[in-house]
Amino acid sequence: MQTSMHDLYRRLQEPSQSKIVMLVADGLGGLPIEPGGPTELEAARTPNLDALAAEGTVGLSTPVAPGITPGSGPGHLGLFGFDPLQHDIGRGVLEALGVGVEVGPKDVAIRGNFCTIDAEGRVIDRRAGRIPTEVCKRLVDKLRAHIRIDEVETLIEPVREYRLVIRFRGEGLGEDVSDTDPLTTGLLALPPVAGSISSETTARVAASFLDQAKVILKDEVPANFLMMRGFANFPKIDTMESAYGLRSAAIAVYPMYRGLARLVGMTVVDPGATLSDQVAALTSHWDRYDFFFLHYKYTDSTGEDGNFAEKVRMIEALDAELPGIRSLNPDVLIVTGDHSTPSRMKSHSFHPVPTLLWSPRTARPDLVTTFGERPCLQGGLGRFLAKDLMPLALAHAGRLQKFGA
Amino acid sequence: MQTSMHDLYRRLQEPSQSKIVMLVADGLGGLPIEPGGPTELEAARTPNLDALAAEGTVGLSTPVAPGITPGSGPGHLGLFGFDPLQHDIGRGVLEALGVGVEVGPKDVAIRGNFCTIDAEGRVIDRRAGRIPTEVCKRLVDKLRAHIRIDEVETLIEPVREYRLVIRFRGEGLGEDVSDTDPLTTGLLALPPVAGSISSETTARVAASFLDQAKVILKDEVPANFLMMRGFANFPKIDTMESAYGLRSAAIAVYPMYRGLARLVGMTVVDPGATLSDQVAALTSHWDRYDFFFLHYKYTDSTGEDGNFAEKVRMIEALDAELPGIRSLNPDVLIVTGDHSTPSRMKSHSFHPVPTLLWSPRTARPDLVTTFGERPCLQGGLGRFLAKDLMPLALAHAGRLQKFGA
Repeated sequence: MQTSMHDLYRRLQEPSQSKIVMLVADGLGGLPIEPGGPTELEAARTPNLDALAAEGTVGLSTPVAPGITPGSGPGHLGLFGFDPLQHDIGRGVLEALGVGVEVGPKDVAIRGNFCTIDAEGRVIDRRAGRIPTEVCKRLVDKLRAHIRIDEVETLIEPVREYRLVIRFRGEGLGEDVSDTDPLTTGLLALPPVAGSISSETTARVAASFLDQAKVILKDEVPANFLMMRGFANFPKIDTMESAYGLRSAAIAVYPMYRGLARLVGMTVVDPGATLSDQVAALTSHWDRYDFFFLHYKYTDSTGEDGNFAEKVRMIEALDAELPGIRSLNPDVLIVTGDHSTPSRMKSHSFHPVPTLLWSPRTARPDLVTTFGERPCLQGGLGRFLAKDLMPLALAHAGRLQKFGA
Repeated sequence: MQTSMHDLYRRLQEPSQSKIVMLVADGLGGLPIEPGGPTELEAARTPNLDALAAEGTVGLSTPVAPGITPGSGPGHLGLFGFDPLQHDIGRGVLEALGVGVEVGPKDVAIRGNFCTIDAEGRVIDRRAGRIPTEVCKRLVDKLRAHIRIDEVETLIEPVREYRLVIRFRGEGLGEDVSDTDPLTTGLLALPPVAGSISSETTARVAASFLDQAKVILKDEVPANFLMMRGFANFPKIDTMESAYGLRSAAIAVYPMYRGLARLVGMTVVDPGATLSDQVAALTSHWDRYDFFFLHYKYTDSTGEDGNFAEKVRMIEALDAELPGIRSLNPDVLIVTGDHSTPSRMKSHSFHPVPTLLWSPRTARPDLVTTFGERPCLQGGLGRFLAKDLMPLALAHAGRLQKFGA
């Protein structure tokens, strides 16, 4: 069904000069902290969002499926018009994207974690005592200096504490290789085993990496070895250009979101450091692209911190930048989130995400005049799956022809 | 997709101590009896349901698909999280469950009906003059006393008027056997014919049963024979435990609903005779299960009777038991129906079913403060397919992990 919908969009592509801006406020949806109280978005003073809601149409987006709490990967794939249930991005690739490691078609990306083994090679601490990130960086430098693998290009990058990313680039590097983490302590670390012929090179290279690492790290305490998990290739996925005919730019401060945008073929534009910088980047690249993905992290991070007041403040800061976006006269402006992050839960949640679609050309107005979870219940977009937002954006941008005669 | 959704829920199972109660008021949805008037639920005085609606979130459930009026089987399968369009429970099995005949993996269940044949064996009355149930019982006793089939265990049970159930239990009893009812009078009753090798034993056993029955019943007037329809095996279906990780108990007074619960692996608990007894059973089994299905029949039976006032009274009686359920502090409490049974229609209907989800942990409030069809239109659950209610319940109960990173 997914493929056939993308085939349909491809078939119906209508060339256009129209511009679409999708502003993703990460983790936008929330919950009240007291019974009957407002959510973060409802509590925030948002005159610009409210004006867009009044002129446009609003609704609630289900990122993946009812009850499912999405990670950032599935959450964004849905917004980009892909069914997240049909496009599972491997763990290794997500970890790599999260630290800004580019992943391409010739790559296999792997999550690594430093661990402690005893003299017999048994894993006695799967996280090496959660070594500080600084130690992780030093150990990665040491590995970089000494690992030698001829048949592929190897890249190693620290993540955080005991975690790192390894990327092999070369020919015929399949992803079907088993994890080496035995999952319980007291057992030997497992060898990487290929599950199919096309992954044998990957398994051999990974085994060589691990053999060398065991020697290089042998005198380190406590991180004297590492394990590999989540071998993953670049996913086979359509691009924004091929599926929708959109030249697309991503303006995102955090590496994860730049990486996700790159997966679907967006060009990553230097975003600066603040949302204000991002709007400036949007302005300076306005003529070169049809679709702009702006990612705003702080609605999620404040929610994860459980800081209701700060999430409100971050929403208000977002609101303040909207006039700058509107002044560019986009044909379609969407404000949404990739999932909810209620500060009450301090985590991503499964709740539907308030979403606003503003289009002076064709938005059909509803009776809603403010942007918030409760108003969105009454909105013209109704309840919809996130993957249906892109075709709506295309339609409002005049980029989809009539289907059938 | 159905299978893959259950695979997803299985994969995301998060162990938890949380408790979910699903109270199914059979046929809950209704219609006004006069233009502009209230429905049964809207007319009822329901302070406890209203309080749950105000604190929780409400919406309208579509049991199977728009416009489809469900029987009890599909209606409940949807509520248990299964797509009723993909899990057709055979008629024989449903008929068996309806009279309290257990059906298991080694069984084939068959709907029987007594009929009248002439001297040449032609069916001249397919319902044997709709003999009274008492006669049906006597004939079933007679069959029980004389039918002898060695290779399987045979169980015969009267249903109502001319209808009975036959269950064969043994090895290799496939369900692919043709009905023996010729569907028009004046024709010979058909032999049971196997449509595949795996059903040949069933066909042979059924033929033997019918041969013997013809002799046993030959002097009866008018029910001197019987026909068989709806051969059906126990359906291949997930259990609540395997799909959702829920130890589940069914507290239902009527056999059909106990049987449906058993199909999906619930443990059937002695329900007593009244809803008050059922709440007592809920209380006494509280610690042993994670999920409780309470079935309340009288909203449906009064609707089927076309008795608006009595359906209102039954809803009020239901309302009165809610404090007893709330006092157990469930993490999630759902009140819904398996379909609508408007007393104006005196039958099941296709109308969406008012549904209430209350969860002090994570329910996102809407603006609805009473429980009824019209208020539910404004509710936070929106319009949804019944099969999506279980993942929502799991999510609110903190029983589903994040999907993807």
